Amino acid sequence: MSERLPDAVVQTADTRIVFIVMDGLGGLPDPATGRTELETAHTPNLDRLARAGSIGLGTPVAPGITPGSGPGHLALFGYDPVEFNIGRGVLSALGVDFELRHGDVAARLNFATLDASGNVVDRRAGRPSNDENARLVAKLRANVKPPTGMELFFESESEHRLVLVLRGENISAALSDTDPQKTGVPPLPVTPTDDRSRGSARIVQHVLDDIREALKDEKVANGVLARGFAAHARYPSFEERYQMRGRAIARYPMYRGLARLVGMKVEKPATEDAGNIDILRAGFGEHDFHFVHFKYMDSRGEDGDFAAKVQAIEKVDALIPGVEALKPDVLVVTGDHSTPSRMRTHSWHPVPVLIASPFTRPAGPEHFGERDCLRGDLGIFEMKHLMSLVLAHARRLQKFGA
Amino acid sequence: MSERLPDAVVQTADTRIVFIVMDGLGGLPDPATGRTELETAHTPNLDRLARAGSIGLGTPVAPGITPGSGPGHLALFGYDPVEFNIGRGVLSALGVDFELRHGDVAARLNFATLDASGNVVDRRAGRPSNDENARLVAKLRANVKPPTGMELFFESESEHRLVLVLRGENISAALSDTDPQKTGVPPLPVTPTDDRSRGSARIVQHVLDDIREALKDEKVANGVLARGFAAHARYPSFEERYQMRGRAIARYPMYRGLARLVGMKVEKPATEDAGNIDILRAGFGEHDFHFVHFKYMDSRGEDGDFAAKVQAIEKVDALIPGVEALKPDVLVVTGDHSTPSRMRTHSWHPVPVLIASPFTRPAGPEHFGERDCLRGDLGIFEMKHLMSLVLAHARRLQKFGA
Repeated sequence: MSERLPDAVVQTADTRIVFIVMDGLGGLPDPATGRTELETAHTPNLDRLARAGSIGLGTPVAPGITPGSGPGHLALFGYDPVEFNIGRGVLSALGVDFELRHGDVAARLNFATLDASGNVVDRRAGRPSNDENARLVAKLRANVKPPTGMELFFESESEHRLVLVLRGENISAALSDTDPQKTGVPPLPVTPTDDRSRGSARIVQHVLDDIREALKDEKVANGVLARGFAAHARYPSFEERYQMRGRAIARYPMYRGLARLVGMKVEKPATEDAGNIDILRAGFGEHDFHFVHFKYMDSRGEDGDFAAKVQAIEKVDALIPGVEALKPDVLVVTGDHSTPSRMRTHSWHPVPVLIASPFTRPAGPEHFGERDCLRGDLGIFEMKHLMSLVLAHARRLQKFGA
Repeated sequence: MSERLPDAVVQTADTRIVFIVMDGLGGLPDPATGRTELETAHTPNLDRLARAGSIGLGTPVAPGITPGSGPGHLALFGYDPVEFNIGRGVLSALGVDFELRHGDVAARLNFATLDASGNVVDRRAGRPSNDENARLVAKLRANVKPPTGMELFFESESEHRLVLVLRGENISAALSDTDPQKTGVPPLPVTPTDDRSRGSARIVQHVLDDIREALKDEKVANGVLARGFAAHARYPSFEERYQMRGRAIARYPMYRGLARLVGMKVEKPATEDAGNIDILRAGFGEHDFHFVHFKYMDSRGEDGDFAAKVQAIEKVDALIPGVEALKPDVLVVTGDHSTPSRMRTHSWHPVPVLIASPFTRPAGPEHFGERDCLRGDLGIFEMKHLMSLVLAHARRLQKFGA
């Protein structure tokens, strides 16, 4: 028996867990009111659950560390986000159902707009439609040849996003991003991050040069930026670790990819958020753990639109009674990270967490919001421990030690 | 890219951080009022910053562990205080500008007063003047011969403090202190703390015996007590780790030594505390990180003088507007440890922390004091994470992971 916890004390139980992730949930106060997006939102259902439940603030990675979506979700699923860090490329490939093999190197590409001197004008090429994305990807498949002795794949993700996969002997993922993260400068060259990856850097740079040549007649999407080169590695699965059949209900590919990485069954995505609840209901009896992902808190936060983020939160709140009707033994509501609309990006601030179960010890706060969670019974804790708490509430952990 | 955090995600930014350390800041309540020194002090400036800022309590090393000044400051600077523990001797040598070489062993000595039977009467020999200290050190230099084949250095620090450095082949620092930490007993013998250091213990004991012989005619400073034998090792620098040019504004040598250890530029010390702010202002544009150290909270706490510690706190508070006038992007105010005047020594109690920046999520407390900090948005956290928070607020950290 491994001494890794909680794995070492996992037991089975006839209990159902619904695990709702409100992406980018945490925020910062509106200077005019002193209230965050979540504190501003009218959330009668979440407030009711918070009053009777366990609440607190989760630190996704460590104090001050802003997580990407990968580390944010891995921590939620109980995987140490530093030990199990993964590259964006692998995530994106998993999210489009690409069957990665061991040793494959994947990168996330963005279609981008470059000006006549090669400087980035728009890092997302005006956010093309998914159809336009598919047309551009087809063009790349037709015109960019794989490096000698290798296989090369391009896969549409959505809008400006696509995935590049290279399959061959000894291709390394120790390569730097070419996305300069700002406009007005050219894409960065591919640089090896260790001594053994110089050849791989040359090969990938050649592919990127060929992509640019293939897109040269495009008016908007005339370039690409690459991020998150990563090699595919195997993760211990949810079933191995927790003896639970998990499934993922998520409308955006990356989150489906994350769930697949840890062995969850990935459901066919709904076309609107309310559809997530229909999918949840349909297969509720056959799985132990139901990961349901809602994206728009993060999207509206990244837009810098406080009021729209408030609305996105309220829309999820309105779906909660539909979840409760299924009578899960444990209902969890949290986020993978904060996305304060004032910052227009992910941030390091701890994230509200709510656990509803019969075994909570409520501390008095009345609302599901950042400051009430600070005073909640869970206090501030490392998010990687949330899954242990959830398993405990689901009676899926034995006593540790005699 | 190293996976050590925050180092792996450090980026540069055009932001300035002022990092004020109020040595020994934390305290214990006056039984008559129930308020600590900080809670008793009138600190309108710190209170104003606390209301809009991030506040919490930092645990310097671990719960229950009382830090020396070295671990206390290393934790503040983001260096794990257990992994990077250093001896007081090395710190003191750095603080007097002694150029330590690798393998040098340094110890901090205190001049002390011994009675006729060799028991310690005053562990600080009545706190001699710096001039008197210099006279005594000259006497040691003239009369104590180096061990065969070795070099021996004595360096004045201040008042009762001096530094001993031994340079030679295979000299070990695995030696116990001779300071018994109380009066009425003789100095302890030098004891090896591992099997390979028996010869070194004999050599150092011989040096200490010669020192006592050289001081035998002194009326007050007729003995020494040795603490913190330590060998010099190299530390990863502030610039390497954080890509920041740091500087130290500190009136006491040990704190300058600590800053030098992590590669900060050390400013010529001011002659009074208000002078620290003049130095801060003078070089403000040329550095990213400004460590400003104030000593007297600790000194008055060690004196057991509650009211004087309150005054020392109020004097620092009065200097805060001068710091704010420089418009730092992030202003941090904290301490390296607690020094409750009731205990007259360092203690393990968590230390108030305040971060002022545009990206805080204030939780409601009104004052900068121990109990308000407990209710602050940062909660209780390990002080070694403070630097990550500070870098985050200064926008000097990228996202971790995709």
